[in-house]
Amino acid sequence: MPIDANAATIVSAFDDVPRFAQGQVRDIRVRWACEEIGRPYRPELIHARADKPEGYRRWQPFGQVPAFADDRVRIFESGAILLYLAERDERLLPSEPADRWNAITWLIAALNSVEPSIMQVVWTGVFNKGKDWVEPAMPAVIDFAKTRLKSLSDALGDKDWLIGRFTVADIMMVTVLRALRHTQILEEFPNLAAYRARGETRPAFVQALADQMAGFDIPESQGVQ
Amino acid sequence: MPIDANAATIVSAFDDVPRFAQGQVRDIRVRWACEEIGRPYRPELIHARADKPEGYRRWQPFGQVPAFADDRVRIFESGAILLYLAERDERLLPSEPADRWNAITWLIAALNSVEPSIMQVVWTGVFNKGKDWVEPAMPAVIDFAKTRLKSLSDALGDKDWLIGRFTVADIMMVTVLRALRHTQILEEFPNLAAYRARGETRPAFVQALADQMAGFDIPESQGVQ
Repeated sequence: MPIDANAATIVSAFDDVPRFAQGQVRDIRVRWACEEIGRPYRPELIHARADKPEGYRRWQPFGQVPAFADDRVRIFESGAILLYLAERDERLLPSEPADRWNAITWLIAALNSVEPSIMQVVWTGVFNKGKDWVEPAMPAVIDFAKTRLKSLSDALGDKDWLIGRFTVADIMMVTVLRALRHTQILEEFPNLAAYRARGETRPAFVQALADQMAGFDIPESQGVQ
Repeated sequence: MPIDANAATIVSAFDDVPRFAQGQVRDIRVRWACEEIGRPYRPELIHARADKPEGYRRWQPFGQVPAFADDRVRIFESGAILLYLAERDERLLPSEPADRWNAITWLIAALNSVEPSIMQVVWTGVFNKGKDWVEPAMPAVIDFAKTRLKSLSDALGDKDWLIGRFTVADIMMVTVLRALRHTQILEEFPNLAAYRARGETRPAFVQALADQMAGFDIPESQGVQ
Protein backbone atom coordinates (compact mmCIF):
# COMPACT_ATOMS: atom_id res chain seq x y z
CA MET A 1 0.00 0.00 0.00
CA PRO A 2 2.00 3.00 -1.26
CA ILE A 3 0.53 5.60 1.11
CA ASP A 4 2.70 5.33 4.21
CA ALA A 5 2.94 8.01 6.90
CA ASN A 6 6.59 7.12 7.44
CA ALA A 7 7.66 7.08 3.80
CA ALA A 8 10.80 8.99 2.81
CA THR A 9 9.11 9.97 -0.45
CA ILE A 10 6.82 13.01 -0.20
CA VAL A 11 4.29 14.10 -2.83
CA SER A 12 2.42 17.42 -2.51
CA ALA A 13 -1.31 17.55 -3.25
CA PHE A 14 -4.17 19.98 -2.76
CA ASP A 15 -6.93 19.47 -0.19
CA ASP A 16 -9.40 22.07 -1.46
CA VAL A 17 -9.92 22.21 -5.23
CA PRO A 18 -13.33 22.94 -6.80
CA ARG A 19 -15.54 19.96 -7.44
CA PHE A 20 -14.91 19.86 -11.21
CA ALA A 21 -11.18 19.44 -10.56
CA GLN A 22 -11.45 16.72 -7.93
CA GLY A 23 -9.98 13.52 -9.35
CA GLN A 24 -8.13 15.53 -12.02
CA VAL A 25 -5.33 17.20 -10.07
CA ARG A 26 -1.92 16.25 -11.40
CA ASP A 27 -0.62 14.55 -8.28
CA ILE A 28 -2.76 11.63 -9.49
CA ARG A 29 -0.04 10.98 -12.08
CA VAL A 30 2.60 10.48 -9.40
CA ARG A 31 0.28 8.51 -7.12
CA TRP A 32 -0.58 6.21 -10.05
CA ALA A 33 3.09 5.59 -10.87
CA CYS A 34 3.86 4.85 -7.21
CA GLU A 35 0.97 2.36 -7.13
CA GLU A 36 2.20 0.60 -10.27
CA ILE A 37 5.57 -0.12 -8.68
CA GLY A 38 4.55 -0.34 -5.01
CA ARG A 39 6.66 2.63 -3.96
CA PRO A 40 5.57 4.02 -0.58
CA TYR A 41 4.91 7.77 -0.42
CA ARG A 42 3.50 10.30 1.99
CA PRO A 43 1.07 12.94 0.65
CA GLU A 44 1.69 16.48 1.90
CA LEU A 45 -1.63 18.27 1.62
CA ILE A 46 -1.67 22.02 1.04
CA HIS A 47 -4.36 24.57 0.25
CA ALA A 48 -4.87 25.52 -3.39
CA ARG A 49 -6.99 28.58 -2.74
CA ALA A 50 -5.45 30.10 0.37
CA ASP A 51 -1.91 31.36 0.56
CA LYS A 52 0.58 28.59 0.01
CA PRO A 53 2.65 27.53 3.04
CA GLU A 54 5.76 29.61 3.65
CA GLY A 55 8.50 28.35 1.39
CA TYR A 56 6.28 26.24 -0.86
CA ARG A 57 7.32 28.21 -3.94
CA ARG A 58 10.92 27.34 -3.26
CA TRP A 59 9.84 23.74 -3.80
CA GLN A 60 7.26 24.40 -6.57
CA PRO A 61 7.93 27.85 -8.10
CA PHE A 62 4.56 28.02 -9.88
CA GLY A 63 2.57 27.27 -6.72
CA GLN A 64 1.11 24.12 -8.28
CA VAL A 65 1.11 20.43 -7.38
CA PRO A 66 2.67 17.91 -7.42
CA ALA A 67 6.06 18.59 -5.94
CA PHE A 68 8.20 15.63 -4.91
CA ALA A 69 11.04 14.93 -2.51
CA ASP A 70 13.00 11.89 -1.39
CA ASP A 71 16.49 11.39 0.03
CA ARG A 72 18.11 12.16 -3.35
CA VAL A 73 16.10 14.90 -5.05
CA ARG A 74 13.64 17.73 -4.48
CA ILE A 75 11.80 18.38 -7.74
CA PHE A 76 8.49 19.38 -9.33
CA GLU A 77 6.60 18.93 -12.64
CA SER A 78 4.65 15.70 -12.98
CA GLY A 79 6.59 14.90 -16.15
CA ALA A 80 9.96 15.11 -14.42
CA ILE A 81 8.71 13.15 -11.41
CA LEU A 82 7.37 10.37 -13.62
CA LEU A 83 10.68 10.15 -15.45
CA TYR A 84 12.50 10.00 -12.12
CA LEU A 85 10.28 7.22 -10.78
CA ALA A 86 10.56 5.31 -14.05
CA GLU A 87 14.28 5.70 -14.56
CA ARG A 88 15.29 2.39 -13.02
CA ASP A 89 12.01 0.49 -13.11
CA GLU A 90 11.34 -1.73 -16.08
CA ARG A 91 7.64 -1.84 -15.22
CA LEU A 92 7.33 1.85 -16.10
CA LEU A 93 10.06 2.28 -18.70
CA PRO A 94 11.92 -0.34 -20.77
CA SER A 95 15.71 -0.30 -20.55
CA GLU A 96 16.20 -1.24 -24.21
CA PRO A 97 17.13 2.08 -25.88
CA ALA A 98 14.71 2.20 -28.84
CA ASP A 99 11.70 1.34 -26.67
CA ARG A 100 12.90 3.53 -23.81
CA TRP A 101 13.24 6.64 -25.93
CA ASN A 102 10.01 5.90 -27.76
CA ALA A 103 8.23 5.92 -24.39
CA ILE A 104 9.99 9.11 -23.24
CA THR A 105 9.02 10.71 -26.56
CA TRP A 106 5.35 9.89 -25.94
CA LEU A 107 5.48 11.19 -22.38
CA ILE A 108 6.79 14.50 -23.72
CA ALA A 109 4.24 14.45 -26.56
CA ALA A 110 1.49 14.16 -23.96
CA LEU A 111 2.86 17.20 -22.14
CA ASN A 112 3.68 19.40 -25.10
CA SER A 113 1.78 18.28 -28.23
CA VAL A 114 -1.52 17.13 -26.67
CA GLU A 115 -2.09 18.68 -23.23
CA PRO A 116 -1.71 22.36 -24.23
CA SER A 117 -4.54 22.06 -26.77
CA ILE A 118 -6.73 20.27 -24.21
CA MET A 119 -5.93 22.71 -21.42
CA GLN A 120 -6.85 25.53 -23.78
CA VAL A 121 -10.33 23.96 -24.03
CA VAL A 122 -10.50 23.85 -20.22
CA TRP A 123 -8.98 27.29 -19.68
CA THR A 124 -11.31 28.93 -22.20
CA GLY A 125 -14.51 27.02 -21.49
CA VAL A 126 -14.24 26.51 -17.73
CA PHE A 127 -11.89 29.11 -16.22
CA ASN A 128 -13.21 31.93 -18.42
CA LYS A 129 -16.80 30.70 -18.64
CA GLY A 130 -19.31 33.52 -19.10
CA LYS A 131 -16.93 36.05 -20.65
CA ASP A 132 -18.28 37.51 -23.87
CA TRP A 133 -15.43 36.28 -26.08
CA VAL A 134 -15.61 32.65 -24.94
CA GLU A 135 -18.53 31.43 -27.03
CA PRO A 136 -17.19 32.80 -30.34
CA ALA A 137 -13.69 31.53 -29.51
CA MET A 138 -14.68 27.96 -28.66
CA PRO A 139 -15.00 26.54 -32.22
CA ALA A 140 -11.38 27.44 -33.03
CA VAL A 141 -10.18 26.22 -29.63
CA ILE A 142 -11.97 22.89 -30.04
CA ASP A 143 -10.81 22.46 -33.65
CA PHE A 144 -7.20 22.85 -32.54
CA ALA A 145 -7.64 20.18 -29.87
CA LYS A 146 -9.33 17.84 -32.35
CA THR A 147 -6.46 18.24 -34.80
CA ARG A 148 -4.03 17.01 -32.16
CA LEU A 149 -6.38 14.23 -31.03
CA LYS A 150 -6.76 13.03 -34.64
CA SER A 151 -2.98 12.70 -34.94
CA LEU A 152 -2.84 10.89 -31.60
CA SER A 153 -5.69 8.58 -32.61
CA ASP A 154 -3.95 7.69 -35.88
CA ALA A 155 -0.69 7.01 -34.04
CA LEU A 156 -2.31 4.81 -31.39
CA GLY A 157 -4.28 2.85 -33.98
CA ASP A 158 -5.40 -0.47 -32.52
CA LYS A 159 -2.59 -0.75 -29.99
CA ASP A 160 -3.48 -1.08 -26.31
CA TRP A 161 -0.72 1.32 -25.22
CA LEU A 162 1.36 3.97 -26.96
CA ILE A 163 4.49 1.88 -27.53
CA GLY A 164 2.62 -1.45 -27.45
CA ARG A 165 3.24 -2.32 -23.79
CA PHE A 166 2.17 -0.16 -20.81
CA THR A 167 4.70 2.52 -19.79
CA VAL A 168 4.90 5.79 -17.92
CA ALA A 169 3.88 7.51 -21.18
CA ASP A 170 0.42 6.00 -20.78
CA ILE A 171 0.09 7.34 -17.24
CA MET A 172 0.76 10.76 -18.67
CA MET A 173 -1.39 10.50 -21.79
CA VAL A 174 -4.41 8.91 -20.07
CA THR A 175 -4.44 11.61 -17.38
CA VAL A 176 -4.08 14.30 -20.05
CA LEU A 177 -7.11 12.91 -21.93
CA ARG A 178 -9.19 12.75 -18.73
CA ALA A 179 -9.26 16.56 -18.60
CA LEU A 180 -11.85 16.47 -21.41
CA ARG A 181 -14.40 14.56 -19.37
CA HIS A 182 -16.65 17.65 -19.13
CA THR A 183 -17.03 17.49 -22.95
CA GLN A 184 -17.99 14.88 -25.57
CA ILE A 185 -14.87 15.54 -27.65
CA LEU A 186 -13.03 12.31 -26.87
CA GLU A 187 -16.02 10.22 -27.89
CA GLU A 188 -15.36 11.29 -31.49
CA PHE A 189 -12.19 9.19 -31.31
CA PRO A 190 -13.35 5.73 -30.18
CA ASN A 191 -9.87 4.26 -29.86
CA LEU A 192 -8.83 7.15 -27.59
CA ALA A 193 -11.96 6.82 -25.45
CA ALA A 194 -11.24 3.09 -25.10
CA TYR A 195 -7.58 3.83 -24.31
CA ARG A 196 -8.55 6.26 -21.54
CA ALA A 197 -10.97 3.66 -20.12
CA ARG A 198 -8.23 1.00 -20.32
CA GLY A 199 -6.01 3.17 -18.17
CA GLU A 200 -8.76 4.10 -15.74
CA THR A 201 -9.53 0.46 -14.99
CA ARG A 202 -6.00 -0.46 -13.95
CA PRO A 203 -6.02 -1.21 -10.21
CA ALA A 204 -3.15 1.22 -9.65
CA PHE A 205 -5.15 4.06 -11.19
CA VAL A 206 -8.28 3.16 -9.21
CA GLN A 207 -6.30 3.27 -5.97
CA ALA A 208 -4.58 6.54 -6.90
CA LEU A 209 -7.91 8.18 -7.70
CA ALA A 210 -9.46 7.00 -4.43
CA ASP A 211 -6.47 8.34 -2.50
CA GLN A 212 -6.60 11.72 -4.20
CA MET A 213 -10.34 12.01 -3.49
CA ALA A 214 -9.80 11.06 0.16
CA GLY A 215 -7.51 14.07 0.57
CA PHE A 216 -10.16 16.70 -0.06
CA ASP A 217 -11.69 18.53 2.88
CA ILE A 218 -15.13 18.14 1.34
CA PRO A 219 -15.16 14.68 -0.17
CA GLU A 220 -16.91 14.22 -3.47
CA SER A 221 -19.63 11.76 -2.71
CA GLN A 222 -20.82 11.31 -6.27
CA GLY A 223 -19.15 9.51 -9.15
CA VAL A 224 -16.05 11.18 -10.55
CA GLN A 225 -16.03 9.65 -14.03
CA MET B 1 31.04 22.02 -37.46
CA PRO B 2 27.97 19.95 -36.54
CA ILE B 3 26.23 20.11 -39.95
CA ASP B 4 27.74 17.20 -41.85
CA ALA B 5 26.18 15.67 -44.98
CA ASN B 6 27.50 12.25 -43.93
CA ALA B 7 26.38 12.35 -40.29
CA ALA B 8 24.49 9.34 -38.91
CA THR B 9 22.32 11.72 -36.86
CA ILE B 10 19.37 13.18 -38.80
CA VAL B 11 17.23 16.14 -37.68
CA SER B 12 14.11 17.14 -39.61
CA ALA B 13 13.42 20.83 -40.28
CA PHE B 14 11.08 22.90 -42.45
CA ASP B 15 12.22 24.80 -45.53
CA ASP B 16 9.16 26.99 -46.06
CA VAL B 17 7.67 28.56 -42.93
CA PRO B 18 6.19 32.09 -42.91
CA ARG B 19 8.58 34.92 -42.22
CA PHE B 20 7.42 35.47 -38.63
CA ALA B 21 8.32 31.88 -37.77
CA GLN B 22 11.76 31.89 -39.39
CA GLY B 23 14.37 31.54 -36.64
CA GLN B 24 11.71 30.22 -34.24
CA VAL B 25 11.06 26.69 -35.50
CA ARG B 26 11.75 24.09 -32.86
CA ASP B 27 14.54 22.27 -34.68
CA ILE B 28 16.66 25.19 -33.45
CA ARG B 29 16.60 23.56 -30.01
CA VAL B 30 18.19 20.39 -31.33
CA ARG B 31 20.65 22.24 -33.56
CA TRP B 32 21.71 24.36 -30.56
CA ALA B 33 22.30 21.31 -28.38
CA CYS B 34 24.33 19.64 -31.14
CA GLU B 35 26.45 22.78 -31.48
CA GLU B 36 27.09 22.92 -27.72
CA ILE B 37 28.60 19.42 -27.76
CA GLY B 38 29.99 19.33 -31.31
CA ARG B 39 27.75 16.46 -32.40
CA PRO B 40 27.53 16.21 -36.20
CA TYR B 41 24.04 16.05 -37.69
CA ARG B 42 22.38 16.16 -41.09
CA PRO B 43 19.25 18.32 -41.52
CA GLU B 44 16.44 16.69 -43.49
CA LEU B 45 14.40 19.55 -44.94
CA ILE B 46 10.70 19.02 -45.55
CA HIS B 47 7.83 21.28 -46.56
CA ALA B 48 5.63 22.67 -43.78
CA ARG B 49 2.83 23.86 -46.01
CA ALA B 50 2.64 21.21 -48.71
CA ASP B 51 1.82 17.57 -48.04
CA LYS B 52 4.40 15.96 -45.85
CA PRO B 53 6.60 13.31 -47.48
CA GLU B 54 5.14 9.81 -47.58
CA GLY B 55 5.74 8.17 -44.24
CA TYR B 56 6.74 11.34 -42.35
CA ARG B 57 3.91 10.92 -39.87
CA ARG B 58 5.25 7.50 -38.94
CA TRP B 59 8.35 9.38 -37.77
CA GLN B 60 6.55 12.49 -36.42
CA PRO B 61 2.84 11.67 -35.85
CA PHE B 62 1.81 15.34 -35.48
CA GLY B 63 3.44 16.39 -38.77
CA GLN B 64 5.73 18.81 -36.95
CA VAL B 65 9.49 19.26 -36.63
CA PRO B 66 11.96 18.29 -35.30
CA ALA B 67 12.11 14.55 -35.63
CA PHE B 68 15.41 12.82 -34.92
CA ALA B 69 17.12 9.58 -35.86
CA ASP B 70 20.50 7.99 -35.26
CA ASP B 71 21.74 4.42 -35.16
CA ARG B 72 19.97 3.74 -31.83
CA VAL B 73 16.66 5.61 -31.82
CA ARG B 74 14.04 7.20 -34.06
CA ILE B 75 12.15 9.77 -31.98
CA PHE B 76 10.39 13.14 -32.01
CA GLU B 77 9.50 16.00 -29.60
CA SER B 78 12.25 18.54 -29.00
CA GLY B 79 12.05 17.82 -25.26
CA ALA B 80 12.73 14.12 -25.70
CA ILE B 81 15.50 14.76 -28.23
CA LEU B 82 17.24 17.23 -25.89
CA LEU B 83 17.07 14.71 -23.04
CA TYR B 84 18.51 12.05 -25.32
CA LEU B 85 21.39 14.26 -26.47
CA ALA B 86 22.07 15.34 -22.88
CA GLU B 87 21.83 11.94 -21.25
CA ARG B 88 25.52 11.18 -21.29
CA ASP B 89 27.00 14.63 -21.76
CA GLU B 90 28.01 16.58 -18.69
CA ARG B 91 28.11 19.81 -20.72
CA LEU B 92 24.33 19.64 -21.14
CA LEU B 93 23.24 17.80 -18.01
CA PRO B 94 25.12 17.17 -14.75
CA SER B 95 25.47 13.55 -13.65
CA GLU B 96 25.10 14.36 -9.93
CA PRO B 97 21.49 13.36 -9.11
CA ALA B 98 20.18 16.49 -7.37
CA ASP B 99 21.47 18.82 -10.08
CA ARG B 100 20.53 16.40 -12.86
CA TRP B 101 16.91 16.14 -11.79
CA ASN B 102 16.70 19.84 -11.07
CA ALA B 103 17.71 20.50 -14.68
CA ILE B 104 15.27 17.90 -16.04
CA THR B 105 12.55 19.50 -13.92
CA TRP B 106 13.23 22.88 -15.49
CA LEU B 107 13.28 21.44 -19.00
CA ILE B 108 9.81 19.98 -18.34
CA ALA B 109 8.67 23.23 -16.70
CA ALA B 110 9.63 25.08 -19.88
CA LEU B 111 7.52 22.67 -21.94
CA ASN B 112 4.51 22.36 -19.67
CA SER B 113 4.31 25.31 -17.23
CA VAL B 114 5.66 28.13 -19.40
CA GLU B 115 5.37 27.32 -23.12
CA PRO B 116 1.61 26.58 -23.20
CA SER B 117 0.78 30.04 -21.85
CA ILE B 118 3.17 31.65 -24.35
CA MET B 119 1.92 29.60 -27.27
CA GLN B 120 -1.61 30.64 -26.35
CA VAL B 121 -0.51 34.26 -26.86
CA VAL B 122 0.90 33.31 -30.27
CA TRP B 123 -2.01 31.06 -31.26
CA THR B 124 -4.59 33.69 -30.33
CA GLY B 125 -2.81 36.83 -31.48
CA VAL B 126 -1.01 35.55 -34.58
CA PHE B 127 -2.73 32.41 -35.90
CA ASN B 128 -6.24 33.76 -35.23
CA LYS B 129 -5.45 37.41 -35.95
CA GLY B 130 -8.44 39.36 -37.23
CA LYS B 131 -11.15 37.11 -35.81
CA ASP B 132 -13.75 39.06 -33.85
CA TRP B 133 -13.12 37.29 -30.50
CA VAL B 134 -9.37 37.83 -30.50
CA GLU B 135 -9.19 41.41 -29.30
CA PRO B 136 -11.51 40.89 -26.29
CA ALA B 137 -9.74 37.61 -25.43
CA MET B 138 -6.19 38.97 -25.46
CA PRO B 139 -6.13 40.59 -21.98
CA ALA B 140 -6.96 37.27 -20.27
CA VAL B 141 -4.54 35.37 -22.52
CA ILE B 142 -1.72 37.81 -21.78
CA ASP B 143 -2.48 37.88 -18.04
CA PHE B 144 -2.18 34.10 -17.88
CA ALA B 145 1.21 34.22 -19.60
CA LYS B 146 2.40 36.99 -17.28
CA THR B 147 1.40 34.97 -14.23
CA ARG B 148 3.67 32.15 -15.36
CA LEU B 149 6.46 34.54 -16.33
CA LYS B 150 6.30 36.21 -12.91
CA SER B 151 6.83 32.83 -11.23
CA LEU B 152 9.67 32.05 -13.59
CA SER B 153 11.24 35.46 -13.00
CA ASP B 154 11.09 34.96 -9.22
CA ALA B 155 12.63 31.50 -9.52
CA LEU B 156 15.46 32.65 -11.78
CA GLY B 157 16.24 35.65 -9.58
CA ASP B 158 19.76 36.89 -10.28
CA LYS B 159 21.13 33.56 -11.47
CA ASP B 160 22.65 33.36 -14.93
CA TRP B 161 21.00 30.00 -15.68
CA LEU B 162 18.10 28.07 -14.20
CA ILE B 163 20.12 25.73 -11.99
CA GLY B 164 23.09 28.07 -11.71
CA ARG B 165 25.22 26.58 -14.49
CA PHE B 166 24.15 26.25 -18.14
CA THR B 167 22.21 23.08 -18.97
CA VAL B 168 19.81 21.70 -21.55
CA ALA B 169 17.00 23.29 -19.52
CA ASP B 170 18.27 26.70 -20.62
CA ILE B 171 18.23 25.68 -24.29
CA MET B 172 14.58 24.82 -23.81
CA MET B 173 13.57 27.84 -21.72
CA VAL B 174 15.39 30.44 -23.83
CA THR B 175 13.81 29.14 -27.02
CA VAL B 176 10.39 29.09 -25.32
CA LEU B 177 10.81 32.75 -24.30
CA ARG B 178 11.90 33.75 -27.81
CA ALA B 179 8.37 33.06 -29.09
CA LEU B 180 7.27 36.34 -27.46
CA ARG B 181 9.57 38.47 -29.59
CA HIS B 182 6.59 39.91 -31.51
CA THR B 183 5.38 41.44 -28.20
CA GLN B 184 6.82 43.63 -25.42
CA ILE B 185 5.74 41.21 -22.69
CA LEU B 186 9.17 39.87 -21.77
CA GLU B 187 10.53 43.39 -21.26
CA GLU B 188 8.33 43.63 -18.15
CA PHE B 189 10.62 41.02 -16.58
CA PRO B 190 14.14 42.43 -16.98
CA ASN B 191 15.90 39.35 -15.60
CA LEU B 192 14.08 37.16 -18.13
CA ALA B 193 14.88 39.50 -21.01
CA ALA B 194 18.54 39.43 -19.95
CA TYR B 195 18.42 35.65 -19.62
CA ARG B 196 17.03 35.26 -23.14
CA ALA B 197 19.75 37.60 -24.46
CA ARG B 198 22.40 35.61 -22.54
CA GLY B 199 21.28 32.46 -24.33
CA GLU B 200 21.05 34.14 -27.72
CA THR B 201 24.64 35.33 -27.57
CA ARG B 202 26.14 31.89 -26.99
CA PRO B 203 28.15 30.93 -30.09
CA ALA B 204 26.31 27.60 -30.32
CA PHE B 205 22.96 29.41 -30.50
CA VAL B 206 24.22 31.90 -33.08
CA GLN B 207 25.41 29.05 -35.31
CA ALA B 208 22.16 27.09 -34.85
CA LEU B 209 20.09 30.13 -35.80
CA ALA B 210 22.20 30.82 -38.89
CA ASP B 211 21.87 27.20 -39.97
CA GLN B 212 18.09 27.18 -39.53
CA MET B 213 17.78 30.41 -41.53
CA ALA B 214 19.97 29.00 -44.31
CA GLY B 215 17.48 26.15 -44.78
CA PHE B 216 14.61 28.32 -45.92
CA ASP B 217 13.81 28.51 -49.62
CA ILE B 218 13.41 32.26 -49.38
CA PRO B 219 16.11 33.44 -46.98
CA GLU B 220 15.21 36.14 -44.49
CA SER B 221 17.56 38.97 -45.38
CA GLN B 222 16.58 41.21 -42.49
CA GLY B 223 17.35 40.83 -38.81
CA VAL B 224 15.56 38.02 -37.00
CA GLN B 225 15.78 39.31 -33.47
